[in-house]
Amino acid sequence: MIRRVGAKISADNTCDFIVWAPFPEKVQLEIQGWKRAVDMNSDQYGYWFATLENITPGTRYKFILDGQLRRPDPASRCQPCGVHEWSEVVASHDFGWNDSEWQNIALSEMIIYELHIGTFTAEGTFTAAIDKLDHLLALGVNTIEIMPISQFPGSRNWGYDGVYPYAAQYSYGGPEGLKSLVDVCHQKGIAVILDVVYNHMGPEGNYLSDFGPFFTDKYTTPWGKAINFDDPYSDHVRSFFLQNALMWLDEFHIDGLRLDAIHAILDNSARHFLKELRQNVDELQLKTLRRHYLIAESDMNDVKIIQPYNNGGYNLDAQWVDDFHHAVHTLATGENDGYYSDYGSVADLAKAFRQAFVYDGAFSLFRKRTIGNSPAGQRSEQFVACIQNHDQVGNRMLGERLSQLVSFEMQKLAAGVMLIAPFVPMLFMGEEYGEDHPFLYFVSHGDPNLVAAVRKGRKREFRYFKWKGSVPDPQAEETYNQSKLQWNYHENERQTRLLNYYRQLINLRKNGAFGLFKNTGIKTDIDEKNKLLVIYSGGSKDQKQLGAVLNFSKKKHRVKLAKRDQQWCKIMASSDQ
Amino acid sequence: MIRRVGAKISADNTCDFIVWAPFPEKVQLEIQGWKRAVDMNSDQYGYWFATLENITPGTRYKFILDGQLRRPDPASRCQPCGVHEWSEVVASHDFGWNDSEWQNIALSEMIIYELHIGTFTAEGTFTAAIDKLDHLLALGVNTIEIMPISQFPGSRNWGYDGVYPYAAQYSYGGPEGLKSLVDVCHQKGIAVILDVVYNHMGPEGNYLSDFGPFFTDKYTTPWGKAINFDDPYSDHVRSFFLQNALMWLDEFHIDGLRLDAIHAILDNSARHFLKELRQNVDELQLKTLRRHYLIAESDMNDVKIIQPYNNGGYNLDAQWVDDFHHAVHTLATGENDGYYSDYGSVADLAKAFRQAFVYDGAFSLFRKRTIGNSPAGQRSEQFVACIQNHDQVGNRMLGERLSQLVSFEMQKLAAGVMLIAPFVPMLFMGEEYGEDHPFLYFVSHGDPNLVAAVRKGRKREFRYFKWKGSVPDPQAEETYNQSKLQWNYHENERQTRLLNYYRQLINLRKNGAFGLFKNTGIKTDIDEKNKLLVIYSGGSKDQKQLGAVLNFSKKKHRVKLAKRDQQWCKIMASSDQ
Repeated sequence: MIRRVGAKISADNTCDFIVWAPFPEKVQLEIQGWKRAVDMNSDQYGYWFATLENITPGTRYKFILDGQLRRPDPASRCQPCGVHEWSEVVASHDFGWNDSEWQNIALSEMIIYELHIGTFTAEGTFTAAIDKLDHLLALGVNTIEIMPISQFPGSRNWGYDGVYPYAAQYSYGGPEGLKSLVDVCHQKGIAVILDVVYNHMGPEGNYLSDFGPFFTDKYTTPWGKAINFDDPYSDHVRSFFLQNALMWLDEFHIDGLRLDAIHAILDNSARHFLKELRQNVDELQLKTLRRHYLIAESDMNDVKIIQPYNNGGYNLDAQWVDDFHHAVHTLATGENDGYYSDYGSVADLAKAFRQAFVYDGAFSLFRKRTIGNSPAGQRSEQFVACIQNHDQVGNRMLGERLSQLVSFEMQKLAAGVMLIAPFVPMLFMGEEYGEDHPFLYFVSHGDPNLVAAVRKGRKREFRYFKWKGSVPDPQAEETYNQSKLQWNYHENERQTRLLNYYRQLINLRKNGAFGLFKNTGIKTDIDEKNKLLVIYSGGSKDQKQLGAVLNFSKKKHRVKLAKRDQQWCKIMASSDQ
Repeated sequence: MIRRVGAKISADNTCDFIVWAPFPEKVQLEIQGWKRAVDMNSDQYGYWFATLENITPGTRYKFILDGQLRRPDPASRCQPCGVHEWSEVVASHDFGWNDSEWQNIALSEMIIYELHIGTFTAEGTFTAAIDKLDHLLALGVNTIEIMPISQFPGSRNWGYDGVYPYAAQYSYGGPEGLKSLVDVCHQKGIAVILDVVYNHMGPEGNYLSDFGPFFTDKYTTPWGKAINFDDPYSDHVRSFFLQNALMWLDEFHIDGLRLDAIHAILDNSARHFLKELRQNVDELQLKTLRRHYLIAESDMNDVKIIQPYNNGGYNLDAQWVDDFHHAVHTLATGENDGYYSDYGSVADLAKAFRQAFVYDGAFSLFRKRTIGNSPAGQRSEQFVACIQNHDQVGNRMLGERLSQLVSFEMQKLAAGVMLIAPFVPMLFMGEEYGEDHPFLYFVSHGDPNLVAAVRKGRKREFRYFKWKGSVPDPQAEETYNQSKLQWNYHENERQTRLLNYYRQLINLRKNGAFGLFKNTGIKTDIDEKNKLLVIYSGGSKDQKQLGAVLNFSKKKHRVKLAKRDQQWCKIMASSDQ
């Protein structure tokens, strides 16, 4: 009933083309350079198929719907001329992998580094990213998380406007480029997580509705029409995204997927899409004999996402914990606008440190309702914590990183909280040396109306914040170029010091120095007045104990540590660096 | 933060008026006959309150929003002049109950009888219904399920257009009338389930949006705007409905709620409204020391609804199982239009008999997607099964009951399947004697545009069916009167025979004659060609065994029963009656 979609070429240059289009009465396959389009056959479920011989990789094709609409393949593996033009046949199974020894890194051991291919390097390609891997290794990072790379309009985009989920962005280096990056990562001992967007489609080059009911009017999302996960025909839509996830994990050797904004994957059917996805990946693991992680971005604080199947959960491996970021950010910056208004106390950070969720069934004044449920019983590696990420930096009007907002000492303090915390830490590219260029929001749409709408929408996004000044033009190439990492830390003493500090912290973490904070029973002493937080590991008296003193004020304070039989002994102090 | 809403009068004639209206800047209380409106005070959550002295029951009031809109109380307990007019203060706690000995009936023992107050008797009132209770007792019914009685526009309505959830329909006899009915039921040993609608509001007299964000644009339902269960301010909206449920169970001594169409209660927050509802009722039970049931109407076939909390479930007590109805109906009638096209085989009925869900992760051709998950491990009393109900009869164009569609023998066969099945059986009023008047769809809206829309919508509803003829006018009084039970079975030999047959079956069921079908391991022999289904209870060879032979064809067939050491012995045959 369900078929694999896309163009699949065999060693003998036979190529199967399959597309799901349940409504058109006729679908034809157009091969670039051929005189006549090929009529496709269909089955009762709306799949159309044609098998052609003498097709070589690089062959370009489109589908013609009802003799009228000429459209690229929704499951295209390659869009060499952008989102509106020909799809290209790709030889998918002949890449020469060198990572047969590779095994994924345990979640609890991961040090994640989020990066955006376009701005991570001057060149903005997969290949150029390879050159930076040694820097990451020296830093201690063992996992990169790549922002979405599915083909998007133009060459400048965060990736959340992707419209060809199966096609690695051509300007980044296309599918071969991505495979090379993953292959080298694995040889160097680095895991790769890919950010995928299964909650909406980009606005430009999105021809999915010409093919079938990929969207539903039953629900809306902040980014437009919701994807049809539970209405008529949804089995095929779900399969389209399930196959996509499996492609990345299986064919591209990706180690984990970061699932964008799963609160906008609206599915009220008896098996939630995310559960089905995890079950599909469970099966894949039996084939690849590798562990593949699924990590959700969720604003719901709902442990259902990460609970086991038999507790009614979707069994995803982990989820991002925004509460941790917000608790640190508000203490570090003093900002209290917009959604940051729900945070700002030392107690919030203490709670986040102890149990990830600050909103665990608590009322949010900003969101104007009760949020979340209790994370009790979850393991600390089920939460990914950061002090900066693409959203928290890039969704500021001026895209300021923490290095542009707080003092050097505060940067070190914030990094310290993240790296001693029991959760999986995630750095945002450049954070490790305090990059001083911003990370702005940028697009390169081809449709002038859309560009105008994005400019307007951007302003609207900041309505809850008191930021002053003018919004950088998302469409301008300059905005994109400004956002590239400068990698000048060698010329900057403070940046070098910060980098060494991160290295040292990560090294300590990897050697287990902060492992006691993963035990349950963490105790926290809260001093709101002086902005002091003291954290003690749990466990019985005669065991080893770990303590941390965090001073978010601008003053020095004398802190009396809890009494114990043995002397306290300093592991490190951020101010020493 | 959350307050109890409505008008609450004390013994000393002090009355607290509380209404939630977070957006108006000013809310006043207008008492009928008073010269000036009373200014109300508000708290930060948008609750407005006033306490007045010398208020007697029967006092009429409205709220004035921002000095302009004069509106009845959304939590009104009584609307003596309809949905647009004054609300009335009701003395809620001085009813003289006589049911102190009452304990609810175990779900597994229930024989439910669904009735519509307006058409159950000639008078169409709660009081008149009391006179029929002895008939029900003689039949063996021990539970009535009352279709929704919350105040709706006019005096003729199924009840799903209610707009004052807290006000028992005045033309039925209002709150006092309902209490009297419940009180007498309990004295006679009859439990009362009330059908409540928490998924939408009726279209006429619905002033909720003037008060606050009761609805959300994020989701849509087949009946219009979705109720706001998870957007900003939803804590208060949820509370409005939670308090309503508790009112019926606590103050009105209702034994269980039938929750209408819970698939349209769209809530993606970390604690689903239905779970919160069940948790609230759990607490109430500690106070009332009575068991209160929550039974869901759901089209999702999702066991999450009825699974325990620790399996991620909402822990509701039971859910309707439409699959059972459809499997019987299609076999009995031969109908295969619309959603009935997904059923019709003996195998479907066998599956429904064995495990309730036919669609347990199976693909539905009519719904064009995979439906349901496995009900394995659920108890049979968690499913309510019927062969007729208000929807299945009344949503036919001509409202025909089974008695108008199939032979006398088939009526008995269908009744037999339901009453030997392991699920909780539910009869639809009049079914027990084969009432030959229809149960049609009727309304009595005051808005001519709405009446036109209903007439049009009604026709649209039948588009998947091949019914011929003209649609009876829902607005016509005649349509309502036609739908009233005639109670003429004494004058009709077949009706009397059918009634005796139902009595005998119910009696046998209550004496445990069919109990073996509740054990797991039921075996079924399926003969599609001859439309024969043979059912055997599970269990080991030397145990007692129960068998049933169901012949849905019009011919006689010889059926060879499974061999066993002891002889088979006939309990009853429908053809003997």
